Amino acid sequence: MKKRNLICTKCKKTFPIEQVYPRCDICNEPLEVEKVVTGRINEGNVLSQTILERYADFFPFTKIDKAISLREGFTSLVGSLRLASELGIKNIFFKNESQNPTWSFKDRGTVTGIQHAISLGYKKIGTVSTGNMAVSVAAYGAKAGCETFILVSANLPLGKFNPIAIYAPILIKVDGDYSQLFFKSLEIGKQHDIYFINADVPFRVEGSKTIAFEICEQMHFEVPDYVVVPTSAGGNIRGILKGFEELRLCGLIDKVPKMICAEASGCAPIYDAYISNAEVVSRVENPHTIAHAIENPYPPSGNEVLRRIRETGGTIVTVTDEEILQAQKQLAQIGIFGQPASAVPLAAVKKLGEKNFLDENDTVVCIVTGGGLKDTAVFKNHELRILNCRLEDLSKLIGSGL
Amino acid sequence: MKKRNLICTKCKKTFPIEQVYPRCDICNEPLEVEKVVTGRINEGNVLSQTILERYADFFPFTKIDKAISLREGFTSLVGSLRLASELGIKNIFFKNESQNPTWSFKDRGTVTGIQHAISLGYKKIGTVSTGNMAVSVAAYGAKAGCETFILVSANLPLGKFNPIAIYAPILIKVDGDYSQLFFKSLEIGKQHDIYFINADVPFRVEGSKTIAFEICEQMHFEVPDYVVVPTSAGGNIRGILKGFEELRLCGLIDKVPKMICAEASGCAPIYDAYISNAEVVSRVENPHTIAHAIENPYPPSGNEVLRRIRETGGTIVTVTDEEILQAQKQLAQIGIFGQPASAVPLAAVKKLGEKNFLDENDTVVCIVTGGGLKDTAVFKNHELRILNCRLEDLSKLIGSGL
Repeated sequence: MKKRNLICTKCKKTFPIEQVYPRCDICNEPLEVEKVVTGRINEGNVLSQTILERYADFFPFTKIDKAISLREGFTSLVGSLRLASELGIKNIFFKNESQNPTWSFKDRGTVTGIQHAISLGYKKIGTVSTGNMAVSVAAYGAKAGCETFILVSANLPLGKFNPIAIYAPILIKVDGDYSQLFFKSLEIGKQHDIYFINADVPFRVEGSKTIAFEICEQMHFEVPDYVVVPTSAGGNIRGILKGFEELRLCGLIDKVPKMICAEASGCAPIYDAYISNAEVVSRVENPHTIAHAIENPYPPSGNEVLRRIRETGGTIVTVTDEEILQAQKQLAQIGIFGQPASAVPLAAVKKLGEKNFLDENDTVVCIVTGGGLKDTAVFKNHELRILNCRLEDLSKLIGSGL
Repeated sequence: MKKRNLICTKCKKTFPIEQVYPRCDICNEPLEVEKVVTGRINEGNVLSQTILERYADFFPFTKIDKAISLREGFTSLVGSLRLASELGIKNIFFKNESQNPTWSFKDRGTVTGIQHAISLGYKKIGTVSTGNMAVSVAAYGAKAGCETFILVSANLPLGKFNPIAIYAPILIKVDGDYSQLFFKSLEIGKQHDIYFINADVPFRVEGSKTIAFEICEQMHFEVPDYVVVPTSAGGNIRGILKGFEELRLCGLIDKVPKMICAEASGCAPIYDAYISNAEVVSRVENPHTIAHAIENPYPPSGNEVLRRIRETGGTIVTVTDEEILQAQKQLAQIGIFGQPASAVPLAAVKKLGEKNFLDENDTVVCIVTGGGLKDTAVFKNHELRILNCRLEDLSKLIGSGL
């Protein structure tokens, strides 16, 4: 493995890159891989590359196992001048992560985590998750031929299990305190040689960097003003910011966009700390939002996201369920159907527009984190129009102007 | 528009490319765009191109409207040597069309059809469909800002409407004979200036060509021996074959793979005609298969698929629901979860292997036409394993070897 250390995001203590335990033994804050300061993007045809190959200079791997890839990433960046004009900004783009192999951004971090696990000799992997991450790790574990452990909370609705179980992992419903399970899994991993690729582990954050790399390529290295990320554990927004920062360190771009951390108002631990000028995030009691994918009451990277947003001059915004639903509908009306969490950035942009935070020269990128078919229960909250007609009356109905 | 004619697939009569009516007035057989004989694939970075731009030489458009794209295509080609070895062939690849913007291959034909419609001045588009195509046309109609008419059968299950309606098209449940609706829509289109992008219209077939183009790029222009396509109306398999043929005419590849048309045994009109040496396909009475996406009792391109398979030395295979379910599970075990129709090619390959049709030097590409979340009702047919455990017993359970 190329020699780069892990480093504590807070106290900067270093750890060997082979360490699997993802947190600092002093601060209990998340570790990350040291930043890359020289590197370039590989050329060649994206159609026959993987993200780990194209952006190899930005990963600490000496050998890349192509067979573990389902060809994640290289997702669309779709703009809408019509919507930008309605929002009073120059342009708005959507990075459509629902085009990943398991239809969420998680696949980027999963393949990167498995690559790390394999390079260390692990044959067993796992995760603690109830949603997109469980599906992603189950799929990639199958592809890589690993024994794959998926630990989920026992009170998960039945419909959530099947899209994980279809990949045939060892799927275990665990009865007990879900927040304890996260730390318990790291202990179990150590005992049984299982590499747990949980929410914000260093190599999952490394995977998220590729979202920034692709945005830069897709915008011909003209950096957007803002990138808006629906935020749960905090690993994805950290990875995207790190990706832009590494590109700047390498001289490939000349500025870093400001990051907008978007949370649901029913579960906004990072926002709460931000507006009360707190140093650390507190656990949200009774979290509740329609955007289940970001309903995380105590995000493990919460403090680090708070630090980074303050350092880099971004901001944190919350949006209500009603605003999320409205944005989900509006996003579908430009052809992109995202799960509720994926509509949070657009709702946040609308709110920032109303507060005059954005101006007419701004270009904004919203991260659409996962596909709409992940959560069909949400349809009951939408009023959807369906007309009825007899075949013989169809021409008349259509001619009537409806 | 670049001057190429439409041509009858059977009698070769030519028609102007501006004609929207998709069939020959003599034979009632489908029309297609005249084959391209000189052209090359454009260079540049796939990350910031659309399929209509990269493969522009292969489309009869003089101007491409990038704003109508959701960046369809450029999907993964994922191989599995492990599975190939089990099947006794050299290699097997899956073209994962579930990574399209609406999670099926239909998006390629939809964007191509809308490009044609717009180049002719249409502002209204439509389709007759119950599944993937309705979703795709609704999404792209929204993106393009077209008035979009989606005509569906009144007896469709309720759950099928929402994933179409979320894009806010004019969605009409039509009470009457569904097979009549297809022809009625063409009449209504003429009356009301609506361009109907139905199943096998010439420009939908043009869109499917890009699957062949990408496979060639992804395999570095080493052509596979077989391409297996789940077949419903017949437009997709025709397009893929046409794509390979055009690449050969242009000198970019030196052979064309043999096409394997895969149908479900509960609805196999093209297979029935093939084995009984019939010239034309007959309507299947009481079609029934778990692969709803290919349950088409009277495919409009059926006769043409039959002719092309006979001419080019491919074959036609049917598989049972049980074989489809087994293949769906097996496909998930290499990380790809497709809707039942998407598992039909793998089931067909297994069947051809048993018949010694394939040999150990063969490379096969299977088209995974759409994503598994499109049809969650199928889960009830799978036995999926979920374990239960208390938090305090978790380490013991995992250590037990399960």
